[in-house]
Amino acid sequence: MTDTWMRREIAEQGEAVAATLEEVRRQAERVRAAMSGRKRILFVARGSSDNAAIYGRYLVETQLGVPTSLAAASIATHYRARLDLSDTLVVSVSQSGRTEEIVEVQRWATSLGAATVAVSNDAESPLATEADVPLTTQAGTERAVPATKSYTSQLAALAGLAASLDGAEGLWPLLDRAAAEVSRLEEAEDGVAAAVDVLAGSEEMLVTGRGLVFGTALELALKLEETCLRPVRGLSYADLRHGPIAVVGHGLTAVVVAAEDGPLVTPIAELAQDLAGRGAQVLAIGGDESLAAASAYHVRGPDLPEPVAPIGLIVPAQLIVESLARRLGLDPDSPRGLSKVTTTDPT
Amino acid sequence: MTDTWMRREIAEQGEAVAATLEEVRRQAERVRAAMSGRKRILFVARGSSDNAAIYGRYLVETQLGVPTSLAAASIATHYRARLDLSDTLVVSVSQSGRTEEIVEVQRWATSLGAATVAVSNDAESPLATEADVPLTTQAGTERAVPATKSYTSQLAALAGLAASLDGAEGLWPLLDRAAAEVSRLEEAEDGVAAAVDVLAGSEEMLVTGRGLVFGTALELALKLEETCLRPVRGLSYADLRHGPIAVVGHGLTAVVVAAEDGPLVTPIAELAQDLAGRGAQVLAIGGDESLAAASAYHVRGPDLPEPVAPIGLIVPAQLIVESLARRLGLDPDSPRGLSKVTTTDPT
Repeated sequence: MTDTWMRREIAEQGEAVAATLEEVRRQAERVRAAMSGRKRILFVARGSSDNAAIYGRYLVETQLGVPTSLAAASIATHYRARLDLSDTLVVSVSQSGRTEEIVEVQRWATSLGAATVAVSNDAESPLATEADVPLTTQAGTERAVPATKSYTSQLAALAGLAASLDGAEGLWPLLDRAAAEVSRLEEAEDGVAAAVDVLAGSEEMLVTGRGLVFGTALELALKLEETCLRPVRGLSYADLRHGPIAVVGHGLTAVVVAAEDGPLVTPIAELAQDLAGRGAQVLAIGGDESLAAASAYHVRGPDLPEPVAPIGLIVPAQLIVESLARRLGLDPDSPRGLSKVTTTDPT
Repeated sequence: MTDTWMRREIAEQGEAVAATLEEVRRQAERVRAAMSGRKRILFVARGSSDNAAIYGRYLVETQLGVPTSLAAASIATHYRARLDLSDTLVVSVSQSGRTEEIVEVQRWATSLGAATVAVSNDAESPLATEADVPLTTQAGTERAVPATKSYTSQLAALAGLAASLDGAEGLWPLLDRAAAEVSRLEEAEDGVAAAVDVLAGSEEMLVTGRGLVFGTALELALKLEETCLRPVRGLSYADLRHGPIAVVGHGLTAVVVAAEDGPLVTPIAELAQDLAGRGAQVLAIGGDESLAAASAYHVRGPDLPEPVAPIGLIVPAQLIVESLARRLGLDPDSPRGLSKVTTTDPT
């Protein structure tokens, strides 16, 4: 059997991450200069890029102590609100660099005094050429519609951006380890087939995670939905506990993603136990031994500390999605109704 | 038949909103003083209160031009990040004022230099007594577990908070109109029975909205899930268009909520047409004539301009939820697994 493009691109991620980190290191001084004198970071993104930005937000707040927000795009594109962004670094994230909505928000931010960094996979795109600092991910051409190597490269670029700012230089050696872990995980198929079995037989699924890996949970949910055409919800641990846990019961598969260390390791294992106690089948990706013990199915994650774990943690999840799509008779490379340059409004 | 508590409390909202607005007016000077010299607002909330805070965020950014963010609670409670909040007004929202997580985040914010406003329904709660400015909603005791009058009172309090700040005084007369519209809508049953019919027969539902009414969409999705025990997704118009629209098809009921004016009226009607073209049954709540024309089912919303429309728009949605729960043989007053003071972590 010939591999799908998606499967091949999953296997190119270690290299793409390493090359992206090298590129970001070259831009580190410019990133530091753009942030100079500014006190806030505002992320602008949509879809998979937004899931990467959510990681960026947690990383910046936990590692740098810089207050960070995710933009509500319509504030710019439809309401044209006049915010004071003179103390803000705006970081736009778009694989193509051509998503009109994101380009428009970046222009709006510039007009309101923001400095801008654009994370895109195309140095010639309007997003990149119009930004104060283009951070170009080195994923190369991505042929499968579902973002894999462009997504992990975005995570690497955002972590590299954080590492370029005062106070987070200690991230650099962890990032080099992350690139190596991604390469290793590209071929780590242990537990993937069993995970695909349980998901293929599930009528209902949700994906949950919290903190630094919350974006990973949302990204996996989006991929399951886009690639496997299953309605799936991504929910934070906390939002799940706060209410929707009431509808958890038999017939549900709950996918729990987690880092192997950090302050959320114990609460997430307790959540898995609780979900299992309510009758859900729990599939854990990553986490520590206590999470594995609490879960009916387990796929090992990266051997990385929590701040950089998301860069590796998505890889086993991608392997599951690609294999599940084929199991369901779908073509992972071109799921129905999606194109590579996304638009929010019909043009 | 005796009315459920939920039905009675829906009917108490006009009064609760009017009384809350009166209370906020009394505190307006203190709110203005707390904001004085500060340049940012950060909302802290969970569940229905978070849906209210999302409205607050759009209102503050569109009407005041003040950059606003929604806190990621774990940044405070688990990572204990040291953000500089000396230029920030933190607005915590919790019906009980006793949700431990929210109280903890407010304490963290105070320790980092923030001024604090607490929107709660209990002036004696820790959240209220520890805040610089307690804004007490006047909803009275809420006996049904699903928040109705406490939620609309939170919306009124947040809008009153915005109206208390420089540049948004023009909201006050609109808010008086909103209270009257809520009273009128409490008894507006036109179209509700037909909406309940279509939802009762639906295997899958999603709720969508954008901008100022995005929080309304999320609140309706949460209520359907908590009260009717159906898995329902709330998605912004833009996130839906960006990917998950690929899985829209026959068998899905899409509920679209909208204001009757504003810059999103035309895009939202186009979205409804698109969803219908893909085979979804579209139920519109609110919006203008073009949205009604694009939708198979329609329930009229409030006659209010977009900035205050959410205060009225949720009322027909609540009537639908209460009636749907009874149709499904459930007790709207005490859905399974929920209690009135919510906790994020087990205690």
